[in-house]
Amino acid sequence: MRLSHLFARTLREDPAEADAASHRLLMRAAFIRQVMAGVYTTLPLGLRTVRKIEAIVREEMDACGAQELRMPILLPSDPWKATGRWEAYGDEMFKLTDRHGREVGLGPTQEEVVAPLVAGELPSYRDLPVNLYQIEWKYRDERRPRYGLLRGREFLMKDAYSFDVDEDAMRRSYDVMLQAYHRVFARCGLDYLVVEADPGSIGGDVNHEFMAPAEIGEDLYVTCENGDYLADLEAASQHLPEAASVDEPAKSEDVATPGATSVAAVARLLEVPESQILKTMLFDAGGQAVAVLVPGDREVNEKKLARLYSPSQVRAFDEDAFEAHGLVRGFVGPQGLGQEIAILADRLVSGAGNWVAGANRPDHHTVGVNVTRDFRVDRYEDLVQISEGDRCPNDGGALRIGSSIVVGHIYQLGTLYSEPLKATFADEDGIEHPYQMACYGIGISRIVAAAAEQFHDDDGLTWPKALAPFEVCVVLATRDHEPSVAQAEAIYEGLSERGVEVVLDDRAESAGVKFKDADLIGYPVQVVVGKRGIEAGTIDVKARRSGERTTAPLAAAVDAASRALQAAP
Amino acid sequence: MRLSHLFARTLREDPAEADAASHRLLMRAAFIRQVMAGVYTTLPLGLRTVRKIEAIVREEMDACGAQELRMPILLPSDPWKATGRWEAYGDEMFKLTDRHGREVGLGPTQEEVVAPLVAGELPSYRDLPVNLYQIEWKYRDERRPRYGLLRGREFLMKDAYSFDVDEDAMRRSYDVMLQAYHRVFARCGLDYLVVEADPGSIGGDVNHEFMAPAEIGEDLYVTCENGDYLADLEAASQHLPEAASVDEPAKSEDVATPGATSVAAVARLLEVPESQILKTMLFDAGGQAVAVLVPGDREVNEKKLARLYSPSQVRAFDEDAFEAHGLVRGFVGPQGLGQEIAILADRLVSGAGNWVAGANRPDHHTVGVNVTRDFRVDRYEDLVQISEGDRCPNDGGALRIGSSIVVGHIYQLGTLYSEPLKATFADEDGIEHPYQMACYGIGISRIVAAAAEQFHDDDGLTWPKALAPFEVCVVLATRDHEPSVAQAEAIYEGLSERGVEVVLDDRAESAGVKFKDADLIGYPVQVVVGKRGIEAGTIDVKARRSGERTTAPLAAAVDAASRALQAAP
Repeated sequence: MRLSHLFARTLREDPAEADAASHRLLMRAAFIRQVMAGVYTTLPLGLRTVRKIEAIVREEMDACGAQELRMPILLPSDPWKATGRWEAYGDEMFKLTDRHGREVGLGPTQEEVVAPLVAGELPSYRDLPVNLYQIEWKYRDERRPRYGLLRGREFLMKDAYSFDVDEDAMRRSYDVMLQAYHRVFARCGLDYLVVEADPGSIGGDVNHEFMAPAEIGEDLYVTCENGDYLADLEAASQHLPEAASVDEPAKSEDVATPGATSVAAVARLLEVPESQILKTMLFDAGGQAVAVLVPGDREVNEKKLARLYSPSQVRAFDEDAFEAHGLVRGFVGPQGLGQEIAILADRLVSGAGNWVAGANRPDHHTVGVNVTRDFRVDRYEDLVQISEGDRCPNDGGALRIGSSIVVGHIYQLGTLYSEPLKATFADEDGIEHPYQMACYGIGISRIVAAAAEQFHDDDGLTWPKALAPFEVCVVLATRDHEPSVAQAEAIYEGLSERGVEVVLDDRAESAGVKFKDADLIGYPVQVVVGKRGIEAGTIDVKARRSGERTTAPLAAAVDAASRALQAAP
Repeated sequence: MRLSHLFARTLREDPAEADAASHRLLMRAAFIRQVMAGVYTTLPLGLRTVRKIEAIVREEMDACGAQELRMPILLPSDPWKATGRWEAYGDEMFKLTDRHGREVGLGPTQEEVVAPLVAGELPSYRDLPVNLYQIEWKYRDERRPRYGLLRGREFLMKDAYSFDVDEDAMRRSYDVMLQAYHRVFARCGLDYLVVEADPGSIGGDVNHEFMAPAEIGEDLYVTCENGDYLADLEAASQHLPEAASVDEPAKSEDVATPGATSVAAVARLLEVPESQILKTMLFDAGGQAVAVLVPGDREVNEKKLARLYSPSQVRAFDEDAFEAHGLVRGFVGPQGLGQEIAILADRLVSGAGNWVAGANRPDHHTVGVNVTRDFRVDRYEDLVQISEGDRCPNDGGALRIGSSIVVGHIYQLGTLYSEPLKATFADEDGIEHPYQMACYGIGISRIVAAAAEQFHDDDGLTWPKALAPFEVCVVLATRDHEPSVAQAEAIYEGLSERGVEVVLDDRAESAGVKFKDADLIGYPVQVVVGKRGIEAGTIDVKARRSGERTTAPLAAAVDAASRALQAAP
């Protein structure tokens, strides 16, 4: 491909709407253009990178026996109502009414299509297992689309679904895919981690996230300084400190704390550490009132709480709820809460006493509050958000929190979808059972953005060669120098013949613009053909990521470029 | 691929909802499954055929310098409002409101995305021409989806758009694509015709349809018995009969025709040929009342009329319109129609006289009606539908009408979209001009159905080898005969090694079921490996479309299958 012909205009300036490095660079380097919020056109360079990821994914899916099909984007609402997700997705799902007044949705995922399909085709245990996948655009009406391809409203995913006769078989299918996922992300050249994670709105039991660490990432994970622990923030736990030997329980008494509705304010006023304050957070879990107790220096991890009450929705108390229960917002303590409110405490709470808690009346707290004597706990659970420096559950080492982009997520679903969808098979005795399902997602367009986040520098993108739109760029630096033109063409042809994906920058632009664009677009190898070099019988080869430059004799130009490509990450 | 593993269950019975041979067979042979009206899942076999068509299209597009990108399905409404198509498409376009209350649509075509894109990237005449294409799903809310993939609501298309500096350049781009289209359809193995056609809702001037003749086809075309004429029915004209020397104009007088509101009834009652009756049809063309006169034995071609008044919508008069103009439905004649009604006559009307026409009062017609003396004609135009047996405009031969499926349609658009979208480039003098555009569509999923319509017999599909999901099926007829199993495996491996796309039917089914399925799915070549043959040292090879069978020695099995494949259409 000659750049004079390629539909790709790089941008000199950062686009105003770009709010992440990948977004900014993918726009500037002419990989994508925005059509509206969260919706992009993929330009020819971007499409080449997407196709490379697709090819890697297809090879690995096919290699483990998964079969490709293609399901519609436009979906009937009935199966979504059967699983309860028509409601659960709410505004996040694009919904419309067709000309005959029927409700249809745009698919964010496809369990509701694939389970009835399989039930229609494979009615017997003899037909199982089967694993079906597709690569197709998905839709999600994000409230605040951002970071370019990272949180779009239209995004390309590989989604796969396995169907098995029982849990053991499902777990075997799952393990095969888990391994295939490792190969996919390794082949893409991504830095990645795999963690056990929170199932979120998909539901189910065991699940793993594949995370690409990146500063901009919105998904947090926890590691141990000693490298022996790794978990999604929502799933992470910690080594519990030894139960502190509680001092003699103090006398419980109320003190005035006018206007002190925050932990910080109370701690300041009473001159106690925040960790001594017992924070009482109130939630509604599908109609059940729940008080959650955590030390004042910790936050409740709402996803951990939500999992305990799944599939009910968990929401923080609103004004009305406080009023209905006769509670004073900002001054709630667990003392005297009625049986209609479930009291859950984080396990950290069990190790301490003489708490400062809200006094359940305006502008007062109670000091010297102790469990059993002053309040009850119905259950101890792991409910706090892990913090930097917490202790590793394996070896007690310090935990660190990192940010990442989730590029893959796989779930053991069991019968979560097959049951409500009545997707069943007959066993040896002719008895019907719901399939044991698992599902497997890879964000194809997200990988493009994640790779751009991980691999860039001040000058532009530094693609892993597996994902670069082209592997080598031959930069014709002096366009009006006939011998340079001839040599650049010869090197371009020579590399093409070797099967290298090469572009020739033959545009009517200055050498400076061409160098800048080559750096910006991020071809792994640049070959510079200019007058001075040609007259000396040499060309220059630059490895983009390392920045390493070598000079090679003209006759060895194709070899030198091939070697540099071979060596490139 | 082993059929024991393939996700493909053939159906013994015709599905009730299938209303065309292609629909029935693509369902039965496990290429597609319906999800809802006009929306299908493409199963693994179907996807292989789709991918083959895509590959042919990509090769031919790339070969003529078109560049692939990918535009969104979810589209903002504003550009569609600028071109007037948000209204014009009406209920045919899927429309929805996002969570922030903004209107978005699902793309039926992409002029409104691609023209602003190009204007943003290629602002100078130096950057042109450019031709961009994509292969993506398109959406159209058909009132009555039918014939499976032929008239679906979600369908796969290749759409390309060229941008040029002037009309000559645009026509050159168009001609390059016209030739590429010939190569695409020829390589797909389709029987096809190319005709100048009506531009329909896309608009513009010159355009060509690529039609695959098929009984079920809804698009009619006209050919001459001598092979020197070919046109879309909407664009077809005829050689006008010589103006009949009109007899002495007869006296004009009214006769009673009680209840005779149809041509047939009047002809019967008055004992005149239908061709002597002057049919007067009334239309509203964007507020202008239009009377169209055609001989009683002909139909008005409304698309020809619509083109004269484009872009206004043309609609037949409704009850209110008849009343508003004081006209008696069923008894209208051109005599005495006021100047507020434009009177258009087909050119056939100019050759005759002494017409029978409505008398403009209930239950009466007028006989002996003649132009000029009794009524005026504002314009003569080509307005009748061509009928079987009309005379060819080139040589007077008899015209024939055939039915076809439109698989490709290309349009010279000029500035029809670039003007309202303000998509402009600067010329040498810095003056802005709208791009000269042309657009080019290929119905990828339609080609699957068109090929199935053209290539099937009573036993199933008979794919051209370019489109068959697999080229050869090795049928293991006696599954419990160890030497047969070994030979079938060896032939399967041998063909795979030669790069043949081969399946091995190793399922636990009877030989009869396997033969039926191989015929139904339509692999171009079948290799039958059974006990009797193996004991005699032979295998059988069957060419699916011709039905030709040959027996080959076991040692030459792979050669024999390869030869049969080579010879297959």
